[in-house]
Amino acid sequence: DLSSMAGRCTLLRTRHALRCLHNSRSTSLIQNGSINVVFCKGPSRLSTRSHTCGELCSRHIGEEVTLCGWVQYLRQDLFVILRDFSGLVQVLVPHDESKHELRNTFCGLSVESVLMVKGRVKRRPEGQENKNMPTGEIEVCAESVEVLNTCRTLPFEIKDFVKKSEAMRMQYRYLDLRSPQMQANLRLRSRLVMKMREYLCYQHGFVDVETPTLFKTNSWGIEFLVPSREAGKFYCLPQSPQQFKQLLMVAGLDRYFQLARCYRDEGSKPDRQPEFTQVDIEMSFVEQGGIRALVEGLLQYSWPEEKGFVTTPFPCVTYEQAMQDYGVDKPDTRFGMKLTDVTEIFQDTRIGWMRDAVTQSHGCVQAIRVPEGSKHLKGKDMESLKNTAQTQFTQEVDTMVVREDGSLKSPLGRLLAPTTRHQLLRVTRANAGDLLLLTAGARERVRPLLGKLRLQCAELLEGHGVRVRDPAVFHFLWVVDFPLFLPKEDAPGQLESAHHPFTAPVPQDVPLLYSEPHKVRGQHYDLVLNGCEVGGGSIRIHNSAQQRYILQNVLKEDVVLLTHLLEALECGAPPHGGIALGLDRLVSIIVGSPSIRDVIAFPKSFRGHDLMSNAPDFVVEEELKPYCISVVWPSVEGADRSPAPPPED
Amino acid sequence: DLSSMAGRCTLLRTRHALRCLHNSRSTSLIQNGSINVVFCKGPSRLSTRSHTCGELCSRHIGEEVTLCGWVQYLRQDLFVILRDFSGLVQVLVPHDESKHELRNTFCGLSVESVLMVKGRVKRRPEGQENKNMPTGEIEVCAESVEVLNTCRTLPFEIKDFVKKSEAMRMQYRYLDLRSPQMQANLRLRSRLVMKMREYLCYQHGFVDVETPTLFKTNSWGIEFLVPSREAGKFYCLPQSPQQFKQLLMVAGLDRYFQLARCYRDEGSKPDRQPEFTQVDIEMSFVEQGGIRALVEGLLQYSWPEEKGFVTTPFPCVTYEQAMQDYGVDKPDTRFGMKLTDVTEIFQDTRIGWMRDAVTQSHGCVQAIRVPEGSKHLKGKDMESLKNTAQTQFTQEVDTMVVREDGSLKSPLGRLLAPTTRHQLLRVTRANAGDLLLLTAGARERVRPLLGKLRLQCAELLEGHGVRVRDPAVFHFLWVVDFPLFLPKEDAPGQLESAHHPFTAPVPQDVPLLYSEPHKVRGQHYDLVLNGCEVGGGSIRIHNSAQQRYILQNVLKEDVVLLTHLLEALECGAPPHGGIALGLDRLVSIIVGSPSIRDVIAFPKSFRGHDLMSNAPDFVVEEELKPYCISVVWPSVEGADRSPAPPPED
Repeated sequence: DLSSMAGRCTLLRTRHALRCLHNSRSTSLIQNGSINVVFCKGPSRLSTRSHTCGELCSRHIGEEVTLCGWVQYLRQDLFVILRDFSGLVQVLVPHDESKHELRNTFCGLSVESVLMVKGRVKRRPEGQENKNMPTGEIEVCAESVEVLNTCRTLPFEIKDFVKKSEAMRMQYRYLDLRSPQMQANLRLRSRLVMKMREYLCYQHGFVDVETPTLFKTNSWGIEFLVPSREAGKFYCLPQSPQQFKQLLMVAGLDRYFQLARCYRDEGSKPDRQPEFTQVDIEMSFVEQGGIRALVEGLLQYSWPEEKGFVTTPFPCVTYEQAMQDYGVDKPDTRFGMKLTDVTEIFQDTRIGWMRDAVTQSHGCVQAIRVPEGSKHLKGKDMESLKNTAQTQFTQEVDTMVVREDGSLKSPLGRLLAPTTRHQLLRVTRANAGDLLLLTAGARERVRPLLGKLRLQCAELLEGHGVRVRDPAVFHFLWVVDFPLFLPKEDAPGQLESAHHPFTAPVPQDVPLLYSEPHKVRGQHYDLVLNGCEVGGGSIRIHNSAQQRYILQNVLKEDVVLLTHLLEALECGAPPHGGIALGLDRLVSIIVGSPSIRDVIAFPKSFRGHDLMSNAPDFVVEEELKPYCISVVWPSVEGADRSPAPPPED
Repeated sequence: DLSSMAGRCTLLRTRHALRCLHNSRSTSLIQNGSINVVFCKGPSRLSTRSHTCGELCSRHIGEEVTLCGWVQYLRQDLFVILRDFSGLVQVLVPHDESKHELRNTFCGLSVESVLMVKGRVKRRPEGQENKNMPTGEIEVCAESVEVLNTCRTLPFEIKDFVKKSEAMRMQYRYLDLRSPQMQANLRLRSRLVMKMREYLCYQHGFVDVETPTLFKTNSWGIEFLVPSREAGKFYCLPQSPQQFKQLLMVAGLDRYFQLARCYRDEGSKPDRQPEFTQVDIEMSFVEQGGIRALVEGLLQYSWPEEKGFVTTPFPCVTYEQAMQDYGVDKPDTRFGMKLTDVTEIFQDTRIGWMRDAVTQSHGCVQAIRVPEGSKHLKGKDMESLKNTAQTQFTQEVDTMVVREDGSLKSPLGRLLAPTTRHQLLRVTRANAGDLLLLTAGARERVRPLLGKLRLQCAELLEGHGVRVRDPAVFHFLWVVDFPLFLPKEDAPGQLESAHHPFTAPVPQDVPLLYSEPHKVRGQHYDLVLNGCEVGGGSIRIHNSAQQRYILQNVLKEDVVLLTHLLEALECGAPPHGGIALGLDRLVSIIVGSPSIRDVIAFPKSFRGHDLMSNAPDFVVEEELKPYCISVVWPSVEGADRSPAPPPED
């Protein structure tokens, strides 16, 4: 009976035993009052079905089964294709006169109606097998059917749903999620996260700790505010649990992790979400190498088997090297086309604008070689590359096609002395048919420009059918030795944190803190996957005096907001460090989706709207009173300054 | 090397293999650049320590170890007691002259300083073992020490911290969490949650899906609002993912779970938190019994071993039975003292107020018997019981002490005819020394009153040292067959949902929906543990027409806010149901803590404040502009209506 069954489960509680139990099948029917509970394996246990649609195969021939699912389609009044999360199965509608009523029920069905079908599994007649369908060897001969729910006529078919407009997919998200693609994405995400938890908890003794969502505001401008019932006082939604995880280390928790929801109000940056999830990790008594090895093991352990094997350790480059080779701090290392510095070749050039460029501070001439670029890229492509350089970087870029005879087809080509040209071809290893992109200027501008053009070339080539980056390949890369501080964009004389003010300096750079802070490197590490930043972390400052010095003297910040953290560091804070992985982005790369919206069950639109439930929405003024706030309606332009009436919803 | 080690991990990836790996010890020292990574088991892998303090025992004698931890105390300039999350270990400070410097370092230490100690494990000298200390057989003979951080003088000792005031504990939460009690609570919670996930994912095929925190407001008054950048439009923080989990069922996800953060702005209800966590579960194609069996298995599987074995199935009573026997819908079944209806005995009573009570609608006379109550409860206790009845229920209650001769010491005693008295003693099974509490009135008042007094008696008895409820015992109970609707408190002519408007009616009661909706029972189930509601759920309405009828015709609600849900039910919604377990409460009962604040890392105070970081806090007016809101400062009483200046922080 139920209780002895459950008892047995617990007695056999080791994981090994559970797997055996899970794999075996108990089909005993239990009468528990009026409820028939059929114990089946995994996803059908405790359910009104006996099997899932997608699991049926020749092994089940002869078995009586109960299936629950949706009508995918009807064929020739003879077959109903029934679907559940696990797949499709063909149900045979009986045509003998005694089953008249049963047939009528089936024939009147609209697609996406919900059925419970009882029947017997049989082998399909010879020649009618469907090899493209996992259940294609069998069909279920219906003996009874119950219509559990009907479905109104839909304006589209589920299978085509991913082709629909983004807005429509979002409005009817509950239909969009029925597509095999979205089902697979959400299930892969769930499995990945579970494996990550196993690895952290069982292999490394991490503790899963929840931290608050209602927090104190401390970096105004991109934090959502939550009014409290005390006039003028607000909570904020945290951008990350950064402070809490450090405080947990001070609390001696030793190893913390959390799948943490984070919030950033950044308006409509492309493919950002106002709320996102990170795998948040922090350890005490650890150095950089420890965190990196942990994360490598984490990804290797949790990586979906069908997506191949993750090789560790991951390659590691310095920030300086990444900028030098790829012009970006998150290089896509699946392909070459690295930046080549050719300044020396042009050291004594007489070409005016190049000479100007070379002689300025940090001036340089750099090139990238696009293999077979002249074969695939057309004039229009060249124009778009030059246009990017012009509009995004206000830089000139010269496109040079290498001809068969070694001459260069380019405006610059005629101006180059033969030695210069030969040197250029040698250094860039350019061959006939290749394309060279050449530019000159300050290193800080040239590198990001060529980094950008490198990616644009890859896209253009792929647009012409050239295989540049293998989408089935995953290239992880650590980037380390970032500068600890960067000049503020709007006030270059002042410094701001490159990442956040809690990052510890590289030990040998500590003396520079007090003399040349802009030269200090941080103990920060970024994890890059296929050219996307999927994680970042650091060893933190655990010394109160150093933290205070950096906040007050280097960053010129008001330390009052961080009193609690500075006090905590005075109370025996251990050395500690951690990392956060962007889960949404990571999963979207694994499943090969261009948008993180394809791996989030209910995402917001570009404008931060939930198009299904219509959030955010208007609230009656009465409801704002307890929170001591009122709406400031934008005044109508040119009119007087009285508040405008609320717009229509 | 590192990569082959990691490779081996993955090859041996089955759980069984991992456990073996986990239990074995690899002590090979790996030089990875400048970083020494020592591979140790579990919690010391990838760390700068080789062992945790608490794991050392006679097995380690002779081993060279590296420990990292906090100075618990120094003893006789000879011993340092070092602490980490795992426990304490005694470090022997060498006293030979050659170690002069080492000794000086130790002796200057303040408590709670952070050290890295290298040394050798040795057996303690005969007679100096400490049997009360898990590591009491050994000590570590220090060979070197590094002070990783110092600690300022604390106003209290960590071990006494739990005795400090709540406010001080909250302000220095990072110190409070260092106590063994709080460490144990957070670690137990993490383990429990991990086991729950295993059970749901691996045994039953559940999918972990995250749902949004920024949602649409739909039950004004207890939802936190989040202003958006569109004037007048607000998100809200959801009270639960109820709508999302139902939509996931419509989406065919089949089985969903989530450890979901939920938000309720209820002001300062005792032991409530503005944010809390629930184990949120929903299944398709399931009936009540399936969900109940799932939850029973879940708790049995995840229950901490040291807390005993959970027997299933749990007992199940109807709401009506619970009210009848215990006067409450969440009875504490660890003890008796059930309500006894004695109306019949008093059917023909001549005592005026009793006759009045009996003859009114639903009138009754009821009693509870407190075994040996007269022995333990004093006059003051009786007064407090009567006081509760008077102040909270405006009811009279009669306390009757049963004397040795069977007579009753009570104001009422003299008025009772001998037969009545005999009958009363027989029906309540009262013996000499027992105490009877007797009251009369409408059933709807009498039951809750006696339910309350029953619990109060238990508390009073326990206050006198009588063992009524065993704190080490866990009594689970299902309560079912709740009414679907209840009269509105402020408008008894109208109905409101007893739980929420998505609960399905009991099938045989459906016809009553259209005639006598107040008689309809819901397919709702509450899970009660030791008298606390730890979970609640229901089979949901999956029929669009029924859902619309209930919202519009029974509850008279505006259905516009729920358009998306009603539309979803029209698109092939499967039958489904689920439950939510209150994780904070559940864990607090397991660890035997009176407050959920003891199982939350960073809880809010009664008034919803974070006393450590000082949240909520004032925000400069400038920061409110993007959100088109302004603060309405409360006007000073009696003054003119101009806004008051912001109060001081």
